[in-house]
Amino acid sequence: MDVKAAVALEAGKPLSIETVQLENPKSGEVLIEIKATGICHTDAYTLSGADPEGLFPAILGHEGAGVVVEVGAGVTSLKEGDRVIPLYTPECRQCEYCLSMKTNLCQAIRATQGRGVMPDGTSRFSLDGQMLHHYMGTSTFANYTVLPEIAVAKIREDAPFDKVCYIGCGVTTGIGAVINTAKVEPGSKVVVFGLGGIGLNVLQGARMVGADMIVGVDINPNRKELAEKFGMTHFVNPKEVEGDLVKYLVDLTKGGADYSFECVGNVDLMRQALECCHKGWGVSTIIGVAGAGQEIKTRPFQLVTGRVWKGTAFGGARGRTDVPKIVDWYMDGKINIDDLITHVMPLDKINDAFELMHQGKSIRSVVTF
Amino acid sequence: MDVKAAVALEAGKPLSIETVQLENPKSGEVLIEIKATGICHTDAYTLSGADPEGLFPAILGHEGAGVVVEVGAGVTSLKEGDRVIPLYTPECRQCEYCLSMKTNLCQAIRATQGRGVMPDGTSRFSLDGQMLHHYMGTSTFANYTVLPEIAVAKIREDAPFDKVCYIGCGVTTGIGAVINTAKVEPGSKVVVFGLGGIGLNVLQGARMVGADMIVGVDINPNRKELAEKFGMTHFVNPKEVEGDLVKYLVDLTKGGADYSFECVGNVDLMRQALECCHKGWGVSTIIGVAGAGQEIKTRPFQLVTGRVWKGTAFGGARGRTDVPKIVDWYMDGKINIDDLITHVMPLDKINDAFELMHQGKSIRSVVTF
Repeated sequence: MDVKAAVALEAGKPLSIETVQLENPKSGEVLIEIKATGICHTDAYTLSGADPEGLFPAILGHEGAGVVVEVGAGVTSLKEGDRVIPLYTPECRQCEYCLSMKTNLCQAIRATQGRGVMPDGTSRFSLDGQMLHHYMGTSTFANYTVLPEIAVAKIREDAPFDKVCYIGCGVTTGIGAVINTAKVEPGSKVVVFGLGGIGLNVLQGARMVGADMIVGVDINPNRKELAEKFGMTHFVNPKEVEGDLVKYLVDLTKGGADYSFECVGNVDLMRQALECCHKGWGVSTIIGVAGAGQEIKTRPFQLVTGRVWKGTAFGGARGRTDVPKIVDWYMDGKINIDDLITHVMPLDKINDAFELMHQGKSIRSVVTF
Repeated sequence: MDVKAAVALEAGKPLSIETVQLENPKSGEVLIEIKATGICHTDAYTLSGADPEGLFPAILGHEGAGVVVEVGAGVTSLKEGDRVIPLYTPECRQCEYCLSMKTNLCQAIRATQGRGVMPDGTSRFSLDGQMLHHYMGTSTFANYTVLPEIAVAKIREDAPFDKVCYIGCGVTTGIGAVINTAKVEPGSKVVVFGLGGIGLNVLQGARMVGADMIVGVDINPNRKELAEKFGMTHFVNPKEVEGDLVKYLVDLTKGGADYSFECVGNVDLMRQALECCHKGWGVSTIIGVAGAGQEIKTRPFQLVTGRVWKGTAFGGARGRTDVPKIVDWYMDGKINIDDLITHVMPLDKINDAFELMHQGKSIRSVVTF
């Protein structure tokens, strides 16, 4: 079928709006009409060419929402008309990883997803006869896409596509890091490094679970107002702190953070996030993605005296199980997504979304079809 | 009173056997007759002068067992005749740390202990009128010592001093790291770096909790036989591994360790211990103490894909609560201490114990009084 898509033809170039060909879903796959998709830093990272695993040409996008329009043979958990969110982290419920109940990193289709193809080793997308790579198993920068059944979360029928698409990545990553990975308890003191889309969702996750003190750290003072709306109780601008930031944060929290989160992808901030944690029990969670080859460092004394260093991907969320719950939380007013979506545009304008992101002018831009 | 002690007069010199003066216990303190004490690498580290926090002159020793002979005013949990183990990590059960139930790092007497004095800011030991520092709050290289009540574990009356003294540090550190810090589950795959006194206790801790695969890593093949006796199922000598050790260990464990432990104090091994852990859930625990200023490093990707980096001190054990249980486990035959105590000697020969340790000829030497 003909599909309208924004194609990443090569690294470092703008996306090209094209009519591409999409094959029907094969066994175990579903065809989804994408109704809305967010534009995330990870898309920009890959498009820039900096991602060593980036493949071109490809259809990027991994933060979508849509409707099932056709199911392939053997599909049992989804049917035509189901409202869904594509999952770049699938949940097969059968592999060693899923069954461990200790991780959300389902490995069922890891190898083929990394190669930009469907589980059978082929792509469903092509442009003028040339194969196009799938991206993160989702390729939501197209008005139709094909996904394996295990990589699709079924959500409630009344969820608005142009809002809940953000749950496909940023919302779940931030809130999930709080509840699944760090397991923040009521009364906790939390420090969040970076108040972009992820950091703001960490803030509201911390508020939702009853944290007492929620400190936001960002060099951009313009983020303060929005961050307060999302639960931040104290704002720290490192540029305005005299002396050592870690000491400042330890003093502010009267001993250190019970939980800290790095939401930028800067290895120096990752160290500060660990070291501002409370001796004895502070847990620091890395969410941001650092540049290729960069390393984190600290003195082992930090760990021997009780701090814990961990990380998270997709907020530790099991997509098919947890994403529908987060949609419910949004619909019930427990979390705020509306104020994070700063720009909405048609697919033709998608390159504007990347430009807004580069300029730091958006929290989240969403393309609607 | 006159006390026979091995005194560390200055860094880098052998201990000097002296008759020193010991004052009576003050309020909240107890006088303990030390019946036996182990000699640990930490004593040697401080004696060498490498420990930046080392104080001289001092009475070293932190792995003792003995009997209460006098209690100071207000002491309620101990009485004359109680068999006890001194604790370098106290358990006041009142401070923020104890009450958190998340850490064993009681801070009640942290500051004075670090300064080598009792909680009232003074020392009980002197030599010819010169003040001698307490060491780690315990100073067990003397046939009598004074400790705060909160730093004394009461144990059963039939426990042999010359064996259970080792529970005052090494045994609890190794076994405790397994059960309190890492929380190893039955069926786990465990990798232990370093098969000295700590590593051997990690092995038997892992065996006790039902680990399936217990891999020991050491460049000394002479450790293999004893390690097998303590539960090791697979021995890896890095000198005999072609190629990358981490890859070898990941292959051997079919995906990586569920739990790894670094028991050497080498920051490069700490990295290998983390990176040989299983993606998604592997937990690496640092037990060894690195040299001053040394740093651990890794790519944050290791944490973002689910590995957890933590550390432990005194095996995460709450001394007054957990040490008596470990004594019971020894008395019940659940753990082996006898085979770890390779040398027993009188106090006059204590410098021989340091020499044996430096030469790698002992697991644990014990001085009996």
